[in-house]
Amino acid sequence: MSDLPTAYPGFSFEITHKAPDSRARLGRLTTPHGTISTPNFIFCGTKASIKGVTPAQMRAEKTDIILSNTYHLMIQPGADIVAKMGGLHRFMGWDGPMLTDSGGFQIFSMGHGSVADEIKGRRTQTRDTTLLKITEKGATFRSYMNGEKLFLSPELSIDIQRKLGADLIVQFDECTPFHVDRAYTAKSMALSHRWGDRSLKEFAKGGGMSYNGLPQALYGIIQGGVYEDLRKESATYTKDRPFFGTAVGGSLGANTAQMDEVVAMTMPHTHPDRPVHLLGIGGIRDIFAGVVQGIDTFDCVSPTRIARHGWALAPKAKGERLNMRNSRFREDPNPIDPACDCYACSNFSRAYIHHLLKAGELLAMQLLSIHNVATMNRLLRDVREAIATGTLAEARQRWVYDPQAQENGEGDPVAQGGAA
Amino acid sequence: MSDLPTAYPGFSFEITHKAPDSRARLGRLTTPHGTISTPNFIFCGTKASIKGVTPAQMRAEKTDIILSNTYHLMIQPGADIVAKMGGLHRFMGWDGPMLTDSGGFQIFSMGHGSVADEIKGRRTQTRDTTLLKITEKGATFRSYMNGEKLFLSPELSIDIQRKLGADLIVQFDECTPFHVDRAYTAKSMALSHRWGDRSLKEFAKGGGMSYNGLPQALYGIIQGGVYEDLRKESATYTKDRPFFGTAVGGSLGANTAQMDEVVAMTMPHTHPDRPVHLLGIGGIRDIFAGVVQGIDTFDCVSPTRIARHGWALAPKAKGERLNMRNSRFREDPNPIDPACDCYACSNFSRAYIHHLLKAGELLAMQLLSIHNVATMNRLLRDVREAIATGTLAEARQRWVYDPQAQENGEGDPVAQGGAA
Repeated sequence: MSDLPTAYPGFSFEITHKAPDSRARLGRLTTPHGTISTPNFIFCGTKASIKGVTPAQMRAEKTDIILSNTYHLMIQPGADIVAKMGGLHRFMGWDGPMLTDSGGFQIFSMGHGSVADEIKGRRTQTRDTTLLKITEKGATFRSYMNGEKLFLSPELSIDIQRKLGADLIVQFDECTPFHVDRAYTAKSMALSHRWGDRSLKEFAKGGGMSYNGLPQALYGIIQGGVYEDLRKESATYTKDRPFFGTAVGGSLGANTAQMDEVVAMTMPHTHPDRPVHLLGIGGIRDIFAGVVQGIDTFDCVSPTRIARHGWALAPKAKGERLNMRNSRFREDPNPIDPACDCYACSNFSRAYIHHLLKAGELLAMQLLSIHNVATMNRLLRDVREAIATGTLAEARQRWVYDPQAQENGEGDPVAQGGAA
Repeated sequence: MSDLPTAYPGFSFEITHKAPDSRARLGRLTTPHGTISTPNFIFCGTKASIKGVTPAQMRAEKTDIILSNTYHLMIQPGADIVAKMGGLHRFMGWDGPMLTDSGGFQIFSMGHGSVADEIKGRRTQTRDTTLLKITEKGATFRSYMNGEKLFLSPELSIDIQRKLGADLIVQFDECTPFHVDRAYTAKSMALSHRWGDRSLKEFAKGGGMSYNGLPQALYGIIQGGVYEDLRKESATYTKDRPFFGTAVGGSLGANTAQMDEVVAMTMPHTHPDRPVHLLGIGGIRDIFAGVVQGIDTFDCVSPTRIARHGWALAPKAKGERLNMRNSRFREDPNPIDPACDCYACSNFSRAYIHHLLKAGELLAMQLLSIHNVATMNRLLRDVREAIATGTLAEARQRWVYDPQAQENGEGDPVAQGGAA
């Protein structure tokens, strides 16, 4: 089809190494704002800001790539203002690779209740009314800020993402929750595929370029819920279309074991040469589970979100994190993690972080966010090194506390989920 | 008296230049943690943290000296823990000069209602009961955290400050509010003098050293409210005692004009060779008014406090600040202050800061705090340069919007006051 993208100038994805004993692989993903090594973790700057961390601090802790959310930015400050200010990179002071999602996840997760909660097996009973209507054309919903009625379609989502100007952008989709049945999931998946085609056409119409004149690259999204045949059908759909990359979305099941199954049934059918992103997932255990299936990038709000609640990511910790409010840290002169070289661990004790939390000081959130960002980046560096040297199992032992218990969905669950 | 300090090893205050036409002067204040040029501004790290700004960011914005509050730290985390963690410098990661106050200001301002409010002429009618009793021995009050009954005396305040281990420490005093009468002010001043003597003795008893073995230097406090004879008497008291430095405290009147009068009636009677600190004052106008009277250091919570409410300090701005929530900044591509070279102004637009505030992002507070810290430091550098070149009046023109109106106490008042 002549009205679809045929090339992605300025972009490439090179697979530099494949593990002999799993689907794990190393890659180099090139964008107009730089090249990142994969597997990698994409930090969530939901509203054009990583909560509590400056871009300079993100860079100092060796961050490679971040994302922002179309849904939030279309409401505040609005895509036109971002475009007028030179695009999202310039607006938020991040000059590295960046992704925006399509807005779909938030519209539907806020409309149906949290999809993230359902991945974790917590069925929510509350249904609010932010999602008003889904039609072939698109979705009508209410602004989370002022209740204003808003509409998003594949064409509008792509247009907004062109105004935002991230490097990697994502097709518009319906993100089906876990509690819907197979029939609804199948119908919704087919709609997402038609929306994917419209996203591709709209992308091509814009010449594959942002409003500020830089090339962008479009990801398709695989839906299909927990159903193997649907996942295969959806993976095949994305493979057969000229997307640059593949995103695995939708409901990944009720617990991490089911999530692993869904990823395992999906990955063999994805395009082998394209980067694969697992949407909204990023616990330490999940990263190891994902990379052996061939996942190249992850994202999750968890590292900075749990930081704001006083939790520090820590290798081998139960639940993957330490509660720095715990009184056992009151007189602890050690850094949060003695093996971590982040700004927080290089300069402050657990006793100080504990004090800041007790005193309600902003700096607690900042230092814990910095530490958690640094820890995710260190984890992904370790993962890449382990893939290169064939030592993923050993790396997993160094990072994951009790794999058996966590496999069964027991223990302190890994925070996953969207940016809503 | 052999039980009083006779020297302050490791400390010095050298006056390097005196203005020919005012009491303004340049100096070099040396402490075991470094030397600062004066006049200078001391930033408030109330609970062992500058709110929203890391020590590295404070340094990057050319901060020379900070303070922490005895009152807050004796409650959380407690002075013993700070001492055990190696003292406040190490605990909070600040290796430069540092001051702690005596705790008096907070006990009495929280007990009587805000002293700061009264300096600004806003009489408060509410009297809470955190201050329970003042006797010759000391003050009994309730913890702001849990209501626990606490006691502070000159001896305990000095002991706590030795445990905290700041370079510059301050005698315990009663900080009289504006609304009390002359008789009470006189009686209270006499009590503060006796407490000053006891503070000196306790300081000498500890060998003038912190618990972690570094020398400290003690400031006396001038009380006397708005009464010229009392201010003279109190200034003479501090001059005649072996304090290292002089702090001007207590009620400075109902508005900035009266504050200027109180400072003017006090300064001629202070020890001419000692550094003079004006407690809790630090508006841009106030700095100019203070330095011509011979004030060497200032402190105020305002720069970071107003930042957290969306205000940016700006030269010549009405009220000395810009409300970054104002919709006129919605599409403004300029930095907060084009003349400012701080991290925020070097990397972000007013439109972005405005967006962050509207979106409720933590980063707004952080960037505005960084900007306000940088602006105060730039102001003080300008002031020192202007004293050296005899151009203070010109510098004042560059910084203060409408001196006439502000002299009369009109316009948006400058935020002043303690760390409570």
